[in-house]
Amino acid sequence: MKGGGYYSRRTRGAKDAIDGASGMLMEAVAALPAPNPGQPVRVADFGAADGGTSKKAMHDTVAAIRARFPQSQVVVTYTDLPSNDYSALFKNMLGLAEEPELSYLTKLTGVFVHACGVGFHRQLFPDASLDLGFSATAMHYLSEKPCEITTHVHMVGANGEERAAFARRAEADWINILLARARELRPGGRLVFLNFGIDEQGRYLGHTGEANMFDTYDRLWRALRDEGRITAEEYVRATFAQFYRTKEEFAAPMLPGGIAYQAGLRLLSARTGLVKCPYRRAFEDAKGAMSAKEFAASYVPTLRSWSETVFANALDPARPADERAHIVDDFYRSYEDVVAADPHRHGMDYVHCYLAIEKVG
Amino acid sequence: MKGGGYYSRRTRGAKDAIDGASGMLMEAVAALPAPNPGQPVRVADFGAADGGTSKKAMHDTVAAIRARFPQSQVVVTYTDLPSNDYSALFKNMLGLAEEPELSYLTKLTGVFVHACGVGFHRQLFPDASLDLGFSATAMHYLSEKPCEITTHVHMVGANGEERAAFARRAEADWINILLARARELRPGGRLVFLNFGIDEQGRYLGHTGEANMFDTYDRLWRALRDEGRITAEEYVRATFAQFYRTKEEFAAPMLPGGIAYQAGLRLLSARTGLVKCPYRRAFEDAKGAMSAKEFAASYVPTLRSWSETVFANALDPARPADERAHIVDDFYRSYEDVVAADPHRHGMDYVHCYLAIEKVG
Repeated sequence: MKGGGYYSRRTRGAKDAIDGASGMLMEAVAALPAPNPGQPVRVADFGAADGGTSKKAMHDTVAAIRARFPQSQVVVTYTDLPSNDYSALFKNMLGLAEEPELSYLTKLTGVFVHACGVGFHRQLFPDASLDLGFSATAMHYLSEKPCEITTHVHMVGANGEERAAFARRAEADWINILLARARELRPGGRLVFLNFGIDEQGRYLGHTGEANMFDTYDRLWRALRDEGRITAEEYVRATFAQFYRTKEEFAAPMLPGGIAYQAGLRLLSARTGLVKCPYRRAFEDAKGAMSAKEFAASYVPTLRSWSETVFANALDPARPADERAHIVDDFYRSYEDVVAADPHRHGMDYVHCYLAIEKVG
Repeated sequence: MKGGGYYSRRTRGAKDAIDGASGMLMEAVAALPAPNPGQPVRVADFGAADGGTSKKAMHDTVAAIRARFPQSQVVVTYTDLPSNDYSALFKNMLGLAEEPELSYLTKLTGVFVHACGVGFHRQLFPDASLDLGFSATAMHYLSEKPCEITTHVHMVGANGEERAAFARRAEADWINILLARARELRPGGRLVFLNFGIDEQGRYLGHTGEANMFDTYDRLWRALRDEGRITAEEYVRATFAQFYRTKEEFAAPMLPGGIAYQAGLRLLSARTGLVKCPYRRAFEDAKGAMSAKEFAASYVPTLRSWSETVFANALDPARPADERAHIVDDFYRSYEDVVAADPHRHGMDYVHCYLAIEKVG
């Protein structure tokens, strides 16, 4: 295990974003209809990874449910892709990882934890069986890339038909996600979702006023192509299977007459929120005690942690593995150099759209 | 992936044992009380690993439930330890592994698959929420070793107080397992369990008349000690955290007045069954076309697959890793030599105890 400070800072931003939804979770718990006699309250965390960033929020949610319905047991089911590390999830839940004091599974009675390794674009629970669904920073992942983006690495920089293809895929995915949840929810059940999005000022993850993170990715990846380190195909294949929706795009299927509205979903609230980059904040708080190089070395690994597979998988598998590893290493080293040369322009602020949704009977 | 033949033979014995319980599963499905309106039928497979060996049985069980209660959806939850490979499980269920034609999750509608990574010695489901619990070849694992066995590697060769300590731990574990299931089951719900055990003739896994597998393990591990390759402590630490119960030991808590009987469990049937070793059978069927050495080389790896951690973990961690690996390699090589020298005395027949249990209201 890396030291606690590393762990905390790496997940701090995602945790801060989730903590910004804790009030919404408490409101949802307060509004839940009473479970039928003998039935548990069923909660889901969609796209939960190892359950680490939502641990505090889930702990407080389960405690609030147990307090409100002392006679009812609680089942929390964490969902993610088949490839997720469910062993890490269950060790975390059993108090065998960081922050065991938040392990409600071992602390509270009448609580059970399950997992589902099927993507959330499909229905994962029986009809009308779910009381409360939560999801944080997960639903920007598309079910598949509709095409490669030939002029950028991410839809935020895409144009024309490519951008439109991503928008169509994102719209269809979001409708599938909502219709699946509409089937799963009991009447009166609630959803609390926070997803990466584009806010009213056009801001999004890593693009909140100064250097644009995705443009930097694209510029440095493109430079490898222009230098002849990678091929034109390898440049193009680095396309994130993601879409950042606006508040309006999130809301659309739940407007009166919309397909999710017809399925019984009611949008109770929608707002965007910004959480400052914890690495950038630590650099600023250090007031000169941290060098630009140190900041770059602390900051870029967190970008690498979630973006590396996109660039690594874009490389021709016919290249020897160590050659591919070197290219990827050089790519992130060049990102560190860019940050170290002008540190005050860099940071990965989080921009989320927070949604509260009710299922009506 | 190794070739299909390797996979099939390696799991054939466990599958044959489970297929021997398919009639019991069909009887259990036929006897289930109808689910309450709008409620799914909930099934659990306790100690399921990657869901491979029970895939056919679960496919047929779910299909029978869907046929009997067409209005009811089905949730199958696979349980195992936190360290289990749940990614393999979900890929298997999604038809991304062997035998995709048995992937009822993708073939049938209204079916959901979940997992639970908490050991089955604890309650894993809400009270009265489970309709049918299945378990194959899993509950011989104890919650912990009560002590090391100083004169053998397995309880089948233990004596005196050590054997008694294992028996006490096994009795307490079995009661915990049954009481947890009694809480989970709906009235009228069923359990179908097949567990390694000792039959009426004193036979058990790898001890059905000729060479005794656990005695061979012990003799060869002891030889390493006598040669000075391993220490006395390392000899002793090789102790399987397992207990093979007799039919009487399985039945005891469910006899009238017993603690599981009082909790509502009724033993409907209990019988022992023997499944022949598929490697030994292939050797015999080859009628001389397979050499003794080839048989040994095909047979010992299956023993190694589930026993290796016991011997590897018995070695002093202060030894360099490659030294430990060499000792373990030599140990299994010596087992191969023993088999090759006298092949007709070796084989790992399976001995199970099959239990059908009902929860009364």
